[in-house]
Amino acid sequence: PDWTPVTKDNVMMLQREFKFKNFKQALAFTNRVGDIAEEEKHHPELITEWGKVTVTWWTHAINGLHKNDFIMAAKTDSVLDA
Amino acid sequence: PDWTPVTKDNVMMLQREFKFKNFKQALAFTNRVGDIAEEEKHHPELITEWGKVTVTWWTHAINGLHKNDFIMAAKTDSVLDA
Repeated sequence: PDWTPVTKDNVMMLQREFKFKNFKQALAFTNRVGDIAEEEKHHPELITEWGKVTVTWWTHAINGLHKNDFIMAAKTDSVLDA
Repeated sequence: PDWTPVTKDNVMMLQREFKFKNFKQALAFTNRVGDIAEEEKHHPELITEWGKVTVTWWTHAINGLHKNDFIMAAKTDSVLDA
C-alpha cells in the first residue's frame, strides 16, 4: 500500500504502513525516519508495532498538507530502500 | 495522566501518554521502551510524536489484558524514571 490521504479531526494527512519481519526492524525504521525528521525539522507521527510502522505526515501550522509533507513522504520511502 | 484502560476493536488495552520537551527525547523514550519489550518478548504499540509518546499494552494471544501487561506498564514507568 502506497501513501494514502487520511483525515483525522478534520485534518488531512498523508499516511503509509511499512511492514517488517519483527519488532526490532520496525523500531530501526522508526529511528531512521526520526533522523530525517530531525534533519528537516519536520516531524511525523510514527506508530511502531511488532512488524509494522505507520508513518503519518502533516503540517501542524496549517492543519493540513503542504508540499513539504509530500517531500518528506518521498524521503521516508528512500530511507526504506537505503 | 496515569495508565487508562482503552478499548479498540473490542480489545481492552492499557494506555498512557508520556510528555517530552521535543521529538528527540520522545524518540529516545520509545527506544527505551522498545528495549524492555525485546527483553521480555512482549511488544506494545508506541506512538511517537513531537514531545509525546503514547504507549499501549495488550496481549494479542488473548485479545485483551493479561497480568503481564500490567507488569510491562509498571516497567514502562520505571524506564521513565531511570
